[in-house]
Amino acid sequence: MAIEDLHKDIDKAWPIHLKRTRELLRIPSVSFTGEGIQESADALQEMVEKLGVKAGQFRASKKSHPLIYGHLDVDAKKTILLYGMYDVQPVGNLNEWDRPPFAASIVKKKGEDRLINRGVYNSKGSLAGSLLAIETMLDGNEMPVNVRFLLEGEEELGGRSLPEYVKKNKATLSKADAVFGFDYCENDQGVPVVTAGMKGCLYFDLIADGANQGGPPNEIHSGDAVWVKSPVWRLLKAVSTFVDDNQVPIVDGIWDDVKGPGREDRELIKALAKRIDMDAYKRNLGVDDFKFSGSKEELITKYMFEPSLNICGFEAGYNGVGTKTVLPSHAEVKIDIRLVPNMTVEGTVAKVMAHLKKRGFGDIKIRRYEDYPFSKIPASEDAVRSNIEALRYHGKEPEVWPMIAGSAPFYLFDQVLKIPWSGTALGRGGNAHAPNEYAVVSTMRDYEKSVITVLCKYGEADSRKR
Amino acid sequence: MAIEDLHKDIDKAWPIHLKRTRELLRIPSVSFTGEGIQESADALQEMVEKLGVKAGQFRASKKSHPLIYGHLDVDAKKTILLYGMYDVQPVGNLNEWDRPPFAASIVKKKGEDRLINRGVYNSKGSLAGSLLAIETMLDGNEMPVNVRFLLEGEEELGGRSLPEYVKKNKATLSKADAVFGFDYCENDQGVPVVTAGMKGCLYFDLIADGANQGGPPNEIHSGDAVWVKSPVWRLLKAVSTFVDDNQVPIVDGIWDDVKGPGREDRELIKALAKRIDMDAYKRNLGVDDFKFSGSKEELITKYMFEPSLNICGFEAGYNGVGTKTVLPSHAEVKIDIRLVPNMTVEGTVAKVMAHLKKRGFGDIKIRRYEDYPFSKIPASEDAVRSNIEALRYHGKEPEVWPMIAGSAPFYLFDQVLKIPWSGTALGRGGNAHAPNEYAVVSTMRDYEKSVITVLCKYGEADSRKR
Repeated sequence: MAIEDLHKDIDKAWPIHLKRTRELLRIPSVSFTGEGIQESADALQEMVEKLGVKAGQFRASKKSHPLIYGHLDVDAKKTILLYGMYDVQPVGNLNEWDRPPFAASIVKKKGEDRLINRGVYNSKGSLAGSLLAIETMLDGNEMPVNVRFLLEGEEELGGRSLPEYVKKNKATLSKADAVFGFDYCENDQGVPVVTAGMKGCLYFDLIADGANQGGPPNEIHSGDAVWVKSPVWRLLKAVSTFVDDNQVPIVDGIWDDVKGPGREDRELIKALAKRIDMDAYKRNLGVDDFKFSGSKEELITKYMFEPSLNICGFEAGYNGVGTKTVLPSHAEVKIDIRLVPNMTVEGTVAKVMAHLKKRGFGDIKIRRYEDYPFSKIPASEDAVRSNIEALRYHGKEPEVWPMIAGSAPFYLFDQVLKIPWSGTALGRGGNAHAPNEYAVVSTMRDYEKSVITVLCKYGEADSRKR
Repeated sequence: MAIEDLHKDIDKAWPIHLKRTRELLRIPSVSFTGEGIQESADALQEMVEKLGVKAGQFRASKKSHPLIYGHLDVDAKKTILLYGMYDVQPVGNLNEWDRPPFAASIVKKKGEDRLINRGVYNSKGSLAGSLLAIETMLDGNEMPVNVRFLLEGEEELGGRSLPEYVKKNKATLSKADAVFGFDYCENDQGVPVVTAGMKGCLYFDLIADGANQGGPPNEIHSGDAVWVKSPVWRLLKAVSTFVDDNQVPIVDGIWDDVKGPGREDRELIKALAKRIDMDAYKRNLGVDDFKFSGSKEELITKYMFEPSLNICGFEAGYNGVGTKTVLPSHAEVKIDIRLVPNMTVEGTVAKVMAHLKKRGFGDIKIRRYEDYPFSKIPASEDAVRSNIEALRYHGKEPEVWPMIAGSAPFYLFDQVLKIPWSGTALGRGGNAHAPNEYAVVSTMRDYEKSVITVLCKYGEADSRKR
């Protein structure tokens, strides 16, 4: 039986695989500073080429971080795209790390060996593991699918290289059958989480400036506030109309396109509600209560299928120690709106701006960023079903979430290329974007085995080629 | 004629006076850092002692900046308190200064010699000039009033030394007839402005924290905003109820104590309206329009006798470059409310907190600072009348403002000691709290002469001892 043999090969090769994973992790690849990005990209390209693939690097512009691409053709019936990311967050305050962030140290904690390194969990550890799993399958002469690699270095930046590469190579890439992007997907209880949808993320700044409203172009003495209008009040009054007292979005028309869960979603939610411990979820977040009361099912449904409108940051005037009596000339707010089916990025922006204009806030300007629409595939897709079957093969019954509130640019796959995506694998870690980011070493080995299982199951599955 | 003789003495002594003023200005006395404070205090004490006065230094605590006090008793019928301040604002960005901020350089600009130095306008230049004017009067054997000196070094900090000294020495100080604090009071058109009232200033921070509302005690992923309440929204929603769409305060009950102008105020406003160029005022502020429309009289009345509620600063979450998708756990706003007769500091705070509590925002905390109630004296007081007469003597018809929107702790004089205050003098300068703070050298000489004139006029006036 091929799967079992391949798993045994992983066990045999594990010391080498762990060593090679640590070597990759020790090369920094900090998205915001660019530190180590090129060296990491070159090391990854070498790993891909070791699979017998001619690989290359693509950049949207000179300043972009390279995307590694390549095509492994084993003459299999099906072709997958393998999505991965090699860029990582900055390390932050070094003093908060128990070990240096790029030393790939292994330490014992809570009775398990943990590998500590920036990016090991999000997501360079699993990326290395995917490539090593494929290498093992090739060595075992049991490669069930062809693979096109899409390994980006701008995930943390929301860069242009992946979308531009996908759009430029749409004809070729859309011939693939599915996309897999394998992460360490076990939660704290060791339950793997299968995701079949992600909310979109619309992020923008709104800016009120005295110069745009016939008001003070520079900071003035606050005594004049008695007769001079402040851009801070304008922005605050404008933005406060975006949500109701329960902080639910009420931008004019924002609910028009909200579709809510379908039949399949409702069934999955029903099953999920039986398994999820909401108190543990609240404890993790540190909150006493949610915005809403209701059954678990009702809460989860809102979580998945309602939009949120959140203030990520607000800044105006003097915020140092003590007092400064000024009427500021400028105020900015950073907002993210999580988009659910069938909200669109541009439709939502238009609604926000119309909402402001209607209330006399036409002077407030918007600053845009790279946005993601939502991304959603039926849980009945072969890619997802093979994934679930594979996890069951490993004795784990996964939670299947039809939607999560996180976002990634997977619309490129299901909306642009029109192919489904999946990618739950074993593996457990934590502290993404935080100090002491880690992965549990034993689960990193399980991860490689589960990637093999998924690809084998998917290779066997009766594909409905779309 | 004594006044004319004394003015001639000023002309004769001017080169020495300018030199001594520059010497004082060259000693920094930065309130926030304490740089040069002690050296400045000692130099000032020496100047006061040169008048034949035994002077001393008072501190509210070890960390306080000293207040210089002393009693000049010339056996005159009347005694005044001379208020002055010797602390200055930080210099800010050195690159924005045309000359070093403590070099007391004299440069030609717009056809006039300007002395550039931090504090020359606000208010160490005039303080030195006051002492030198008194020295000239003593030398001329024409000192018409006794003087108790109150020269503080914490005006820019809102420190405790002045209020504590005044309260501790209330019995003695309240026997004085009036307080004079002479500044360079000519506006850009060379018109001296007499002030007979100042709004109070209530300054506080409001703080919303997840930990106080059963919400997230730490920053969390913004995807969870769909069901987790944000302290940023809470603070924003709470504060947005403080003013109406025209940014007029509507805190519950805040207008209850607002008294509006009296008969004398209305007359002064009528006279002022004829002289003030509102377009120039707007141009100076850089605003196209005020909050209100109406006649000049109506606008000035609102400016003087209505409270303002202003946001000096607002800060929450991530405000750096680009995007960070977080639900912040903490938000703070800095607010100042300008208090008009008969609003009180504690009454207003109580109204703000009750307003919040009534709307379910009882979790929002307040951080207090040193506050000033309003301060107001009748323009018919001898001190003010002598001041106006003196300016007319110099050929200047002053604008008399019954109230300004600026604030100073002069309630200590009219409310605690129950004596009137005044202190308009000639002199013109600019850029207080900004780079290239300056005073026009020729007007610094006029200043000393006008101080002499005011004190002589006041010494002669028929005092109604209170």
